[in-house]
Amino acid sequence: MAPAPVRPAARVATQQQDVWSIINEAAAASPIQPIVNMGQGFFGYNPPKFVTDAAKSALDRVECNQYSPTKGRPRLRKALANAYSPFFGRTLDPETDVVVTTGANEGMLSAFMAFLEQGDEVIVFEPFFDQYISNIEMPGGKVVYVPMHPPASGATKTSSAAEWSFDIAAFEAAISPRTKMVVINSPHNPIGKVFSRSELTAIGEICVKHSIIILSDEVYDRLYYVPFTRIATISPEIAALTITVGSGGKIFYCTGWRVGWLIGPKELIKYASAAHTRICYSSVSPLQEATAIGLEEAEENGFWEESKREMKGKMDSFNKIWDELGLPYSDPEGGYFVLVNMSRVKLPESYEFPSHVANRPRDFKLAWFLIMELGVAAIPPTEFFTPQNAHIVEDYLRFAVCKDDEVLETAKERLRGLKKYID
Amino acid sequence: MAPAPVRPAARVATQQQDVWSIINEAAAASPIQPIVNMGQGFFGYNPPKFVTDAAKSALDRVECNQYSPTKGRPRLRKALANAYSPFFGRTLDPETDVVVTTGANEGMLSAFMAFLEQGDEVIVFEPFFDQYISNIEMPGGKVVYVPMHPPASGATKTSSAAEWSFDIAAFEAAISPRTKMVVINSPHNPIGKVFSRSELTAIGEICVKHSIIILSDEVYDRLYYVPFTRIATISPEIAALTITVGSGGKIFYCTGWRVGWLIGPKELIKYASAAHTRICYSSVSPLQEATAIGLEEAEENGFWEESKREMKGKMDSFNKIWDELGLPYSDPEGGYFVLVNMSRVKLPESYEFPSHVANRPRDFKLAWFLIMELGVAAIPPTEFFTPQNAHIVEDYLRFAVCKDDEVLETAKERLRGLKKYID
Ligand SMILES: Cc1ncc(COP(=O)(O)O)c(C=O)c1O
Ligand SMILES: Cc1ncc(COP(=O)(O)O)c(C=O)c1O
Repeated sequence: MAPAPVRPAARVATQQQDVWSIINEAAAASPIQPIVNMGQGFFGYNPPKFVTDAAKSALDRVECNQYSPTKGRPRLRKALANAYSPFFGRTLDPETDVVVTTGANEGMLSAFMAFLEQGDEVIVFEPFFDQYISNIEMPGGKVVYVPMHPPASGATKTSSAAEWSFDIAAFEAAISPRTKMVVINSPHNPIGKVFSRSELTAIGEICVKHSIIILSDEVYDRLYYVPFTRIATISPEIAALTITVGSGGKIFYCTGWRVGWLIGPKELIKYASAAHTRICYSSVSPLQEATAIGLEEAEENGFWEESKREMKGKMDSFNKIWDELGLPYSDPEGGYFVLVNMSRVKLPESYEFPSHVANRPRDFKLAWFLIMELGVAAIPPTEFFTPQNAHIVEDYLRFAVCKDDEVLETAKERLRGLKKYID
Repeated sequence: MAPAPVRPAARVATQQQDVWSIINEAAAASPIQPIVNMGQGFFGYNPPKFVTDAAKSALDRVECNQYSPTKGRPRLRKALANAYSPFFGRTLDPETDVVVTTGANEGMLSAFMAFLEQGDEVIVFEPFFDQYISNIEMPGGKVVYVPMHPPASGATKTSSAAEWSFDIAAFEAAISPRTKMVVINSPHNPIGKVFSRSELTAIGEICVKHSIIILSDEVYDRLYYVPFTRIATISPEIAALTITVGSGGKIFYCTGWRVGWLIGPKELIKYASAAHTRICYSSVSPLQEATAIGLEEAEENGFWEESKREMKGKMDSFNKIWDELGLPYSDPEGGYFVLVNMSRVKLPESYEFPSHVANRPRDFKLAWFLIMELGVAAIPPTEFFTPQNAHIVEDYLRFAVCKDDEVLETAKERLRGLKKYID
């Protein structure tokens, strides 16, 4: 008997092309080169020198090149406890309340692996950061979606990202006896919304009522342009259920370093830490050390203020192009993404799209058109929705402004080419 | 109704202390300081300068600090294909036959996640690298064990690690209709055995017969002191089922860098790559670049030969102490671990062990005694066996020789203190 062919597990069996590769491949194939890539949220510039210098000196130290303790280098755990204790209004214990992970991403996977059994449910708001879904499904979890909605006037006028809203009754209705966790994300990717204290209180109280663990993805926590509330600070009861996710890559402009962390009560962290050990064993040592030194020195270097001011400057300067073109956008309250409404852009009727774009919602066509005709890459946000709710954002595109100022100027210049497609 | 307390998933619920923390904590508590730590397999010295220099210059390059492609930086995939094609006797395609992972560890997890469904079985030889077990169980796999045995004369005379053997009939008997994968490890940790061509052929042919995927953990592939066969080179049929695991941390003395890889046929790699994307998204960028440069330059720098000669020198020099003491050991054919048989060491009858050591097999007591009385830390290998087979190695300890020469000399000096406990 001929042996059966080797079959993959269901969790990887569908090899669908993801939005990142579709956009990156299109960008590479654009006749306009170099493309201005405002698609993926990586930085177009280097981390601050005090952080890369710290990394370089760590590379000369024997112990910084070898395995770190699985829960993270003591110096980084201490630096995190010191940096974050003031925000959380309690003294974080570096031994028990913090675990260092391989990027925020593996941190979140660790949390899901720590708490989800087959069939447990996790509530996720749409739009969502796409990795949440596979990370929840890997341990056998089931995603239950609650959509967020743009303001009714989203297609006609610019308004604050705060205007994106969700129905708290829909959230509560999504809870079942199997609901184990909820993921929230503030400042939000891709909306740019910073959840208000009252929104977070409403979510948190429902979670307390039903004993639901809150995974609060706060990777953009150093980039907020309105008052920022961390859900873990609202009440001790909410804090007891909250794991906060952070990212060294996002705060120090080095997404490729893969240093992230989870902060929370020790009763939750210990299980996430155990899962992390089983997933990656330990995280990258020299860059943990550099991140520790970065956290130690950032405040006195005025880095946080500068970082926020700089990003807000990029955001405001870039968004002038939309004012000029008369295209409405969600004015971000945090982070480095802006969602722009392109319903007024008329794509030429005869325009030919490749089939893998033609059979997608309109935002994919808009993205393709901008790449090929204008040389600017952005991300179609329907990818961050389920198919049934994708229509909510089919006229939007997401632009990442964490790029050099000259690049943003080139983008604006190129985007002026949209004028002739706007009626 | 009071909410139910939050419960962890079964996969992390048992918070048993692992051997690494038991030994590290004991080492920290030893009255003899600094301890000579020959326990965990991290290096006591830095990576070669051409590799750390490459890392430092990568830290100055914008794209090297940002997300890498999920399957790895193109330069590293190319360097791996170039470096490994000659070994595999085929031209590896850097686009399809290689995926870069977060250490070998996350590479293996990716392979298990790619192919195991709930209840699928994986055959693992004992002793095993402990992470295999949790990595197999995480996607719902079930481990089926096949023990390896030391030579019958293991307690009385030193012989080659080659003398450790397994029963090929036991291996075949372990196969069931649910068997999906087998893990082999050569050069082997902790035995130091390099599997012979005929052993690998026997295993490989059985795998072909039953369509079993072979995960060949070859992280010590640059440290072999006898001819080394890679199972993937034995036949095209075996190659079609084999994923080979490698580790930048092991070959360049930087276990904390977390750069590893999987090499294999594209039909297998594509699924492992998909799983890797879902686990970690992508791996650490600047250290991938440095590893690429390391691979490009190692050959012409004579690094591989030097590395092997140096480690073999450490091994032989260190093992003289056992000859001197009359304690037999398994003379390693590869890697940097040596298993020493301590049945002749008589622990004082009145010696008091803490309870978490007292209720473990004799090797834990030996390890504790060496730490506390001599100031040398080694690893009790029963931890790499199931409880029912642990007796096989209860008289052994594992020493890692990847340490500075002076450290090894200090270790030898201290180990002379064993003399009075040997009858
Ligand atoms: C909302 C959100 N969470 C998590 C991450 C991942 O962060 P990291 O790179 O630290 O894994 C991202 C990255 O884009 C993100 O946008
Ligand atoms: C046999 C074996 N495989 C894999 C690994 C893990 O390698 P990495 O550090 O690249 O994850 C080790 C580390 O000790 C090992 O001994």
